[in-house]
Parts: sequence; C-alpha cells; structure tokens
Amino acid sequence: MKVKLDYPIPLIYPIPITLVGSLVEGTPNYTCIGDTGLMGINPPLIFVSSHANHHTNKGIMENLTFSINIPATNLLSKTDYCGSVSGSEVNKSALFSNFFGELKTAPMIEECPVNIELSLVKEFSIEHRQIFVGEVAATHIDRDILVEVDGLKKIPSLPQLDPIIYALDNHYYRIGEQIGTGYTEGKKSISLPQNA
Amino acid sequence: MKVKLDYPIPLIYPIPITLVGSLVEGTPNYTCIGDTGLMGINPPLIFVSSHANHHTNKGIMENLTFSINIPATNLLSKTDYCGSVSGSEVNKSALFSNFFGELKTAPMIEECPVNIELSLVKEFSIEHRQIFVGEVAATHIDRDILVEVDGLKKIPSLPQLDPIIYALDNHYYRIGEQIGTGYTEGKKSISLPQNA
Repeated sequence: MKVKLDYPIPLIYPIPITLVGSLVEGTPNYTCIGDTGLMGINPPLIFVSSHANHHTNKGIMENLTFSINIPATNLLSKTDYCGSVSGSEVNKSALFSNFFGELKTAPMIEECPVNIELSLVKEFSIEHRQIFVGEVAATHIDRDILVEVDGLKKIPSLPQLDPIIYALDNHYYRIGEQIGTGYTEGKKSISLPQNA
Repeated sequence: MKVKLDYPIPLIYPIPITLVGSLVEGTPNYTCIGDTGLMGINPPLIFVSSHANHHTNKGIMENLTFSINIPATNLLSKTDYCGSVSGSEVNKSALFSNFFGELKTAPMIEECPVNIELSLVKEFSIEHRQIFVGEVAATHIDRDILVEVDGLKKIPSLPQLDPIIYALDNHYYRIGEQIGTGYTEGKKSISLPQNA
C-alpha cells in the first residue's frame, strides 16, 4: 500500500558523492556534488547540476572544462567540508595535492582514486540550477588499484574503490556485499513470452 | 601515482539502479536504467539518459510523462531482467502490479518501495543518447517503511530502502554501514583560513 509524500521529492538513490573541480581565476576549486551522474558510456558523458551561485560554476564557464574526482571513504571529512564552505570564502585547493591532465585547465585531486577530465559540451539552466554536460577527455586512476589483465587496463571492482555513498536521508554509507552480476541475474530465473 | 586509462571511461559511481516506466501505446513498459540521477531538489528534477532506440523512449514522447521506480534488493532478478530484454519483444508489465497516479499516464510498480511520477520538462539528444529531464509531480512510498514524525511524513533511511547498488564493474551490491552525516563530518575536524 502506497502513501503519497506531502512534497514531490526527487527521491532517487544512491547518489554518487563527487568533488567537482574547476579553475576559478587561476585557483583550483572543488565542491562536493551529489547532483551528478552518468549520461552514457559511448560517447562518455557525465552531467553536473549546480546551484547557479556556486563558485565552481564560474570556473567551468571560464575554461569550458571541469573535473569529477571520486573520493574514497578515507576522504569523508575533506569531502564533506568541500560541500559545507564556498570557494569564494576559503581556498579549498589547500586541502589536497592538485594536478592537471590533458585539458590543462581541469584541476584534479591526487588523493582521490579516480579523476575524470571533462570538456563542456552543453550547458543550460532550469530555474536556479545550472546544468553542465561534459564529455570525458581522460580518466585517471591510482596505479595501486588498477587491475591489469592481459596487458589491458581494467577498472577495479567497487569495493576496491570504497566509495562514499549518500542518499537524501543526509547520511553517508559504505558499500556492502556483492549480490549479483549485471545482465545475468534476470535471465537466470525469468522468461516472458515473446510478443505476438 | 596515477595511470591514464586507455579509454575515456565515465567512471562515476555508485550508480542508482532504477526501473524507468512509460506507457507505450497503452501498455506499461519498464526498463532498467542506471544512467539517471538527481538534478536538483527545488525544483525537483531527475534526468534519464537512454539509447535512442529504447522502447521506453517512445512512451515518454507519446505522453510527455514517465516514472522512476526504485527496486529494493529483493527485486534484483526482475530488475536485471528488465534491463536485458526489450519491451518491443516481451510485455514486461506482466512481471509487476502496475498502478497510476496523478499524471494518469506514468505507470508505476507497486513492488518497488519508492515511485516517482515525472512530467517531461526538457528533452535533447547527444549522438545516439536521448536525454529526458523530468520534474517530479508526486512521490509515492510504501506505507510500511514511511517514517512519520510529529505528523510529518519523513523519508526512510537508506538501509530501510535497501537499494540495489551498481557500478561500471557490472556487479550489484547492497548498502553497507553508515559512516557519517552530511554537512557535519567536515566542519567537525577541518577549518581553512578565510580568503583575504
């Protein structure tokens, strides 16, 4: 039996916790953003939605580049801090070792196991949200957790990446046990008749 | 030390696993989509990115409405199945108890603990990806897991919702332990000087 909530909450979960980086007037800035997600693998697209007054937005519009840095749970305090204070007030790049990649203007965080450089391919606003769609230029990963199979670099499993998981209950969580494999669990046990 | 991956992978995680519903020529259809995410709470926006040839897209364009249904781990097989077969071949609505809400044309799944009805507010394409931005019209939740505090309906915590967690390693996971609280962990231990 269902209940309708009093407000139309966009109750989608889990939310990926990321540190979005941009270069604002020459200084790397990072903000903690959960309003982000995968838009496709080929072409490799990620979007970020940010309140129009965020300091980070300025740098994205200045350089047309940005980064997504994915912290592991050992960076929980710094990550949360980046979401609690503005780059207009403090220099958040002092919290991290910063580096640049192919795009030269998308600052990245050495301490995050995964760093993604993006070129802005589309930008639009809905009310006070400014939405950026980026195409991935390069993906960087810690050598220690990289899996190499037959000379090919394979991405690590989710537990190795140990991400910070978030939801609208405003709590952070760790990843739990593996419960299945994609494109496999369903067909093992379910079969529907073909449409006529 | 970082390594650049051979391909520019949009390695963002965790990915929320959802069943996106639309009414295609009168029949509810659901597809398993992880290319989705929160675009903002106020206004309440969620986007879905779907390959242009997906059957579900037809129903979204036909009615300008769609639904996001969030399965718990007990629906893993059915969820994975919905991502493995096309509604053009089988009638996936036969897997679930279907219901409609305020929008009348956005089919929802009774067995999912959370159901969100959305009106299409923006649609665009990047190469073969069709991207839909919806504004939430109503959010429905199982009465059993609803938390009521002082007469106000509060959303449940993430472990109560027991979501299916996914990442580009193609495995499904369960949520783990709570490790902190938003907008709290950082300021407990970190303080940077104010900009001059």
